[in-house]
Amino acid sequence: MSLSEFRPLDDKFLIEYIKSVPALSSKLADNFDDLSVKEVGDGNLNFVFIVSNPAGSFVIKQALPYVRCIGESWPMTKERAYFESLALKEEGRLSPEHVPEVYHFDRTMSLIGMRYLEPPHIILRKGLIAGIEYPLLAQHMADFMAKTLFFTSLLFRSTSDHKRDVAEFCGNVELCRLTEQVVFSDPYKVSQYNRWTSPYLDRDAEAVREDNPLKLEVAELKSKFIERAQALIHGDLHTGSVMVTRESTQVIDPEFAFYGPMGFDIGAFLGNLILAFFAQDGHADQANDRKAYKEWILKTIEDSWNLFYQKFTSLWDEHKNGAGEAYLPTIYNNPEVQLLVQKKYMTDLFHDSLGFGAAKIIRRIVGVAHVEDFESITDAAKRASCERRALDLAKMLLKERRKFEGIAEIISAIRQY
Amino acid sequence: MSLSEFRPLDDKFLIEYIKSVPALSSKLADNFDDLSVKEVGDGNLNFVFIVSNPAGSFVIKQALPYVRCIGESWPMTKERAYFESLALKEEGRLSPEHVPEVYHFDRTMSLIGMRYLEPPHIILRKGLIAGIEYPLLAQHMADFMAKTLFFTSLLFRSTSDHKRDVAEFCGNVELCRLTEQVVFSDPYKVSQYNRWTSPYLDRDAEAVREDNPLKLEVAELKSKFIERAQALIHGDLHTGSVMVTRESTQVIDPEFAFYGPMGFDIGAFLGNLILAFFAQDGHADQANDRKAYKEWILKTIEDSWNLFYQKFTSLWDEHKNGAGEAYLPTIYNNPEVQLLVQKKYMTDLFHDSLGFGAAKIIRRIVGVAHVEDFESITDAAKRASCERRALDLAKMLLKERRKFEGIAEIISAIRQY
Repeated sequence: MSLSEFRPLDDKFLIEYIKSVPALSSKLADNFDDLSVKEVGDGNLNFVFIVSNPAGSFVIKQALPYVRCIGESWPMTKERAYFESLALKEEGRLSPEHVPEVYHFDRTMSLIGMRYLEPPHIILRKGLIAGIEYPLLAQHMADFMAKTLFFTSLLFRSTSDHKRDVAEFCGNVELCRLTEQVVFSDPYKVSQYNRWTSPYLDRDAEAVREDNPLKLEVAELKSKFIERAQALIHGDLHTGSVMVTRESTQVIDPEFAFYGPMGFDIGAFLGNLILAFFAQDGHADQANDRKAYKEWILKTIEDSWNLFYQKFTSLWDEHKNGAGEAYLPTIYNNPEVQLLVQKKYMTDLFHDSLGFGAAKIIRRIVGVAHVEDFESITDAAKRASCERRALDLAKMLLKERRKFEGIAEIISAIRQY
Repeated sequence: MSLSEFRPLDDKFLIEYIKSVPALSSKLADNFDDLSVKEVGDGNLNFVFIVSNPAGSFVIKQALPYVRCIGESWPMTKERAYFESLALKEEGRLSPEHVPEVYHFDRTMSLIGMRYLEPPHIILRKGLIAGIEYPLLAQHMADFMAKTLFFTSLLFRSTSDHKRDVAEFCGNVELCRLTEQVVFSDPYKVSQYNRWTSPYLDRDAEAVREDNPLKLEVAELKSKFIERAQALIHGDLHTGSVMVTRESTQVIDPEFAFYGPMGFDIGAFLGNLILAFFAQDGHADQANDRKAYKEWILKTIEDSWNLFYQKFTSLWDEHKNGAGEAYLPTIYNNPEVQLLVQKKYMTDLFHDSLGFGAAKIIRRIVGVAHVEDFESITDAAKRASCERRALDLAKMLLKERRKFEGIAEIISAIRQY
């Protein structure tokens, strides 16, 4: 089927569509008798269908031209599906164990057909709320982040390849603008979309809007987000963009992908683990005080950074005589300068990650989009108390991030709030 | 004339071409009897013809597909003429008093027809070597830099406009790569193109290649040059890209233009004034000890930054409630935070300018392309002594730039070398 214009999916049309696309119908052994189709999109932006029969399965994701939960009043380009498919393919090439395979992409229909992440895969955020440990999570996410960020940076690539891809992803500007608004702007001003656990956090939300040093720092991060094309970033790497089992970790939904600062991805992941940590007291009950689980989250935060650091620098060492143009081997040609350079790079990246992570925490507490970690705490007073601790930590991190030298210091700081 | 493919100009074909382009032939009142055509390109990359008759005049600049002085062995895309014409038009729109008007552009022919900057306009570098004072130079250059940089930055523009133009100028990657090589790489390694005043500076050139802290800093600047799309920069704003009379200052040759860090332009201009300063002792003779002229150069350096600072921040104040997305007025909404933000921005820009300026000085002494300021000093020992002082200052500035708080401290430092 070659459609000349966009058409939103429904069950009936979906099946017609699949029949016309060999890359999809072949997954079902071209058998449509026993077909199951489930619409499961719980996001705000897309239709998501799981299609399966005894022979096989896949997911169909279609971008809609508006933010679904708000409706047609908040238009949002469906071209994001094109950038999502580009990013899925590139991330999948670089980190195939942790990215679902793309079977089909249709730009006119803004439609991606990809691997269905079968049960017991669940959204990581839901696992964190349920108190489930994922022993390989830190290792897997470190691996995904190190590979996707390193191999799309100037540590590995020529500036010709870099500028070509930067130019391409400049087209995803509408999604970038959404991030600029909801992460770096709205939480720091009066905005109709902002909300928080009121009245408990009224004064806290106001304090964010009146904190000049905080606003100074967030402006620097916003500029870096917009201006610095350091690597192909996922752009929305929170715990809702990761699906997990005990053995498997899969990163999905890179529709916000573009060439931006690496720290934005690392910070998103670490920041959302910190949110999960502070939400635990709201989920504790007599059966489970969540103390052990909180320790596991802290260990996962620490391991994620440390394993990322190890993996990233070992990729760097491995490819230091390659085509990367940031540090030419003929210049950075002795172990001493190589060490200096890596230390400086990784320290800057650590501080960026802390800053972006903190900004992501703040926006989830006083901005438009909240997280289920906190939202599922029904007692508002208790929820507000959890949120305030996370918020206070994040404000401190955003302002003082350059004083921290390692992730262990961050773990200590988290314990103090 | 509509040519289907590129053809290098010669006198005869040039006239045929002009006759076929009304925007050019009309400047000559369509009269070709009394025509004067002079080839004046002294650059490395292009043909430049001055065409005139009693009715009018213009310049024809044609980009050749290689670096002219080296020959066809160093290919260089002639598409740079397209980016030069784009930049000339944009800079001309923003700062019309200081940019020659473009009359005609032909992408196939890589050919720009533009205003001829009539005598007594000369290249600023030649004026600085001759010891001529330009009382309006600092004011004019400050004005050009403030306007072109401010109005193409996120202080004035939306991120949509920004990303569209960033993507377009990513196409000028070959010229960017040339800068990356000759400014940020070659001077710090053994390269066949490097040269210096030998044997006097042999040890100095080697010291540059072995200075780990220096190489650490230059790597940071190189990454910033490649990754940070802060504004549309000229990309080659040395004193050979400026034509002057006592009353007029005209910025030409933006073929290296792209979205990069503002400090690269400011640093190029200030750095080349510093080169001119250190060359003066080589031009001093019994008739003129150049002492007064050195003071004028120092004053011009100081005024250029201070006037730039004033003009840039006053543009910012004037447009602070406009469409610029870096600092939304609803967030940066009190005089105190506005002051904090400007101070931080301008301090960062000052440090960037010092770093890039220092890198531009270093590359002119131990890299491939030298400056006539020094080259015209025939006594090699004397030349080397001038160059060494500039080089030593630049190395210090590159490493210590963050310790300087204002341009007056830079002037003091220059006096000490």
